[in-house]
Amino acid sequence: MNRLSASTSICHYTATDIFVREKNLCKDLIGSTSLTDFLYFLIMGVSPTDAQRAIVEASLITIAEHGLTPSVIAARLTYMGAPESLQGAVAAGLLGVGDQFVGTIEQVAPLLVEIADSPSSSEVAARAIVTRYRAAHKLVPGFGQPHHKPDDPRSPALFAVGDQHQVNGKYVAALRSLGAAVDEAMGRHLTINAPAAMASLFLEIGIPLRIMRGFVLIGRCIGLVGHLAEEQSSPAGRVLWDAAAHAIEFVG
Amino acid sequence: MNRLSASTSICHYTATDIFVREKNLCKDLIGSTSLTDFLYFLIMGVSPTDAQRAIVEASLITIAEHGLTPSVIAARLTYMGAPESLQGAVAAGLLGVGDQFVGTIEQVAPLLVEIADSPSSSEVAARAIVTRYRAAHKLVPGFGQPHHKPDDPRSPALFAVGDQHQVNGKYVAALRSLGAAVDEAMGRHLTINAPAAMASLFLEIGIPLRIMRGFVLIGRCIGLVGHLAEEQSSPAGRVLWDAAAHAIEFVG
Amino acid sequence: MNRLSASTSICHYTATDIFVREKNLCKDLIGSTSLTDFLYFLIMGVSPTDAQRAIVEASLITIAEHGLTPSVIAARLTYMGAPESLQGAVAAGLLGVGDQFVGTIEQVAPLLVEIADSPSSSEVAARAIVTRYRAAHKLVPGFGQPHHKPDDPRSPALFAVGDQHQVNGKYVAALRSLGAAVDEAMGRHLTINAPAAMASLFLEIGIPLRIMRGFVLIGRCIGLVGHLAEEQSSPAGRVLWDAAAHAIEFVG
Amino acid sequence: MNRLSASTSICHYTATDIFVREKNLCKDLIGSTSLTDFLYFLIMGVSPTDAQRAIVEASLITIAEHGLTPSVIAARLTYMGAPESLQGAVAAGLLGVGDQFVGTIEQVAPLLVEIADSPSSSEVAARAIVTRYRAAHKLVPGFGQPHHKPDDPRSPALFAVGDQHQVNGKYVAALRSLGAAVDEAMGRHLTINAPAAMASLFLEIGIPLRIMRGFVLIGRCIGLVGHLAEEQSSPAGRVLWDAAAHAIEFVG
Repeated sequence: MNRLSASTSICHYTATDIFVREKNLCKDLIGSTSLTDFLYFLIMGVSPTDAQRAIVEASLITIAEHGLTPSVIAARLTYMGAPESLQGAVAAGLLGVGDQFVGTIEQVAPLLVEIADSPSSSEVAARAIVTRYRAAHKLVPGFGQPHHKPDDPRSPALFAVGDQHQVNGKYVAALRSLGAAVDEAMGRHLTINAPAAMASLFLEIGIPLRIMRGFVLIGRCIGLVGHLAEEQSSPAGRVLWDAAAHAIEFVG
Repeated sequence: MNRLSASTSICHYTATDIFVREKNLCKDLIGSTSLTDFLYFLIMGVSPTDAQRAIVEASLITIAEHGLTPSVIAARLTYMGAPESLQGAVAAGLLGVGDQFVGTIEQVAPLLVEIADSPSSSEVAARAIVTRYRAAHKLVPGFGQPHHKPDDPRSPALFAVGDQHQVNGKYVAALRSLGAAVDEAMGRHLTINAPAAMASLFLEIGIPLRIMRGFVLIGRCIGLVGHLAEEQSSPAGRVLWDAAAHAIEFVG
Repeated sequence: MNRLSASTSICHYTATDIFVREKNLCKDLIGSTSLTDFLYFLIMGVSPTDAQRAIVEASLITIAEHGLTPSVIAARLTYMGAPESLQGAVAAGLLGVGDQFVGTIEQVAPLLVEIADSPSSSEVAARAIVTRYRAAHKLVPGFGQPHHKPDDPRSPALFAVGDQHQVNGKYVAALRSLGAAVDEAMGRHLTINAPAAMASLFLEIGIPLRIMRGFVLIGRCIGLVGHLAEEQSSPAGRVLWDAAAHAIEFVG
Repeated sequence: MNRLSASTSICHYTATDIFVREKNLCKDLIGSTSLTDFLYFLIMGVSPTDAQRAIVEASLITIAEHGLTPSVIAARLTYMGAPESLQGAVAAGLLGVGDQFVGTIEQVAPLLVEIADSPSSSEVAARAIVTRYRAAHKLVPGFGQPHHKPDDPRSPALFAVGDQHQVNGKYVAALRSLGAAVDEAMGRHLTINAPAAMASLFLEIGIPLRIMRGFVLIGRCIGLVGHLAEEQSSPAGRVLWDAAAHAIEFVG
């Protein structure tokens, strides 16, 4: 095996200073920057524009909380069994933030790139995608929301933030075209859901597909800490357990 | 800082052989040893006696499964959100195997050591412990089981394995004394529960307190894989979620 | 939403008995069955044949331990940071048992099914697969092992267990054909590695592809508990940290 | 068992609206609030004052990043083994954020409360604590930092944020007294480390001890996503593995 080597550009330190990328943590960042600016800089390697900051901040707030999700229930039950380890309960909750939970973002984004890059009009490209999914007997990802009708209220809120900062280019347009094609094919209106809206806005501001899930995890981490703080003062774990266990019938 | 050094005795390998401690994995272990013998040897560093094997095997089987525990529910909900990662669902389930779930074993064991080491009779030592807990308004750990009355059926099954192999010495006697003192103080019978029985038998065969939890984790890992195999073929996640979420009232 | 329902067949209990599938845990299993028989029964729903038991037992022992793997290092570092949570350290180790670590099993198995089901001879089918992978500039999974040359010693050990129990049918043959086609195309010998051997044997005994990873997780859980027991008595975490951190250069 | 009940006050939703506590997520929060304000409101139940916002923001930024920590190494190694699950890698990293990693905060805070609440002067109370620890042959938590000398640069940076917002009351004073008593007893200067500084400031702004770890987890989650983004574009996992594994000697 050849001698391997690797490097990092994120952080290094001396006896007296800590550097996060090219900035001095204690002189340039602590007390001088917002949390959103900091996390964007840390992850992306550059400071955000106003538009990038606004989209990331709005997206993390959007994704942080949606009540007693499976991920929150898992975290609360874990905390009940292992109260010595708050980190274990947060970790258990994050482990459910996977292909089903945030997959929509990752599945929608390539479709929007496909439409935006298509030599055809976006209407034609969108209809082609819908036809392809229907031929495969699959639903186009990003549309419909079981709890919110007729529209997921988070999507227009996110788009409004985008409009305020001129983040409403070809990927948002592609999503609207895709939504129109879906509605046309279904013969009824399906909402653009929040993950789809986030996918379009993340593409607009240049966040790579592969790290979109990372931003979602930060948002969800905040929500999980909130729920676990409540679990500490007002435990619900036993009720969650009891109700869940009794809902499943044993069949020998 | 001085130059640090550290060593391992568990495993090393050459181009042609793999050694687990002093045994050759491919020549001495694969095909020649049972899983229980192997895990005991790996963790404890020596091969088990017949009695040690029997107790560990019975204990892992005992702890593997108890229906829809909080840990199982967390694992199934996690798998629903992240089906790409079976390991994430198993990990989420294990994260709930903590102080509340297995703490009884770890809390009971020192009490049994205290009784066994006491210069007084075990009856006197046991009563002193019960008195101490009552003065602190705490329950003596290891007694009572919410689902099983009058007795946790696992405890006599474990003790029977112990009796068969003459694993019924001072720690089992200490547990029986403690149980008698608890019943006397409560004025009614509380069962010796399975974790307490396991604690006494693990002490008898010389398993250190600090790694008892490790054996429990192996048993639970087996149970979790069983539940996730069922979740694959017969998903219950959505029902668990729905029932749990609806059991909690929002109070603004 | 329609009323959902779901069922489980794994475990239920009454005040006096616990049933694992149709067996009484305390009367039929504790003290009467081996750990391997128990886990097979729990996961697969039926008791193993002698051949199934032998293959599962040998495979779990094979996969449990391979020294300081990334997964073991992650577990030891996690334990150093959070010694209150042995379960967290085991969970961290299992989280690395994913597509790269066990993916070979899951990638090889479908190729063996393809060869075994092919109307052509297995030689022809194997060569077609190799050609397809080479055209895609990808390596055929299951061959080569960075630490073991000329052969991974675990594979012949596993096949020997198979031979002893007449578990050496079409999937093992398919793997040998695939190996011959790989060697032929490469112009040199690449070993059938242990995950590939396990894939062929798991197929032979009827373990579904989707739960193969579950068996691997149980084996790895055993290995992780062994390493964490050693970490308790002879800590290596600080040395692992120091060596790893110093191996990475900061590039501003 | 009596019928159990439980409630939540964090989030509920209707077909058209989502409420986080008493605020409408889509109308009052998305696009109108900062991430720090949001997370404080979510966890603590009230909006932060300027001082509370500044302390939390500075603390999360302080704790997010310190180079190749054990937690970061665990996350990168996990990602190497399971690249399909970014959430698994983040979870593995968070699992190491436990008693050793953040324990200082949780151990120092009660000492500061003890000093602040003492009827004696803070000098006397601080000296009594130092004497108690020395009698028990234990180090007073919160002082010294292996990588930073003579002072941890993060502590004055955090205190400066506190001073700017008049967050420099009795708990900060208690920490300074404790530091003076430590220096006096040691006969040399030990720095107030960053976790100790955070403990004093968190107490000043009224964050309960039990949820301090939750804030740390959010900060660390940000840092882990940053490192995993780098691992995606510039993998270091194999080098970390190689260096760590080779640093440990096998002793048979």
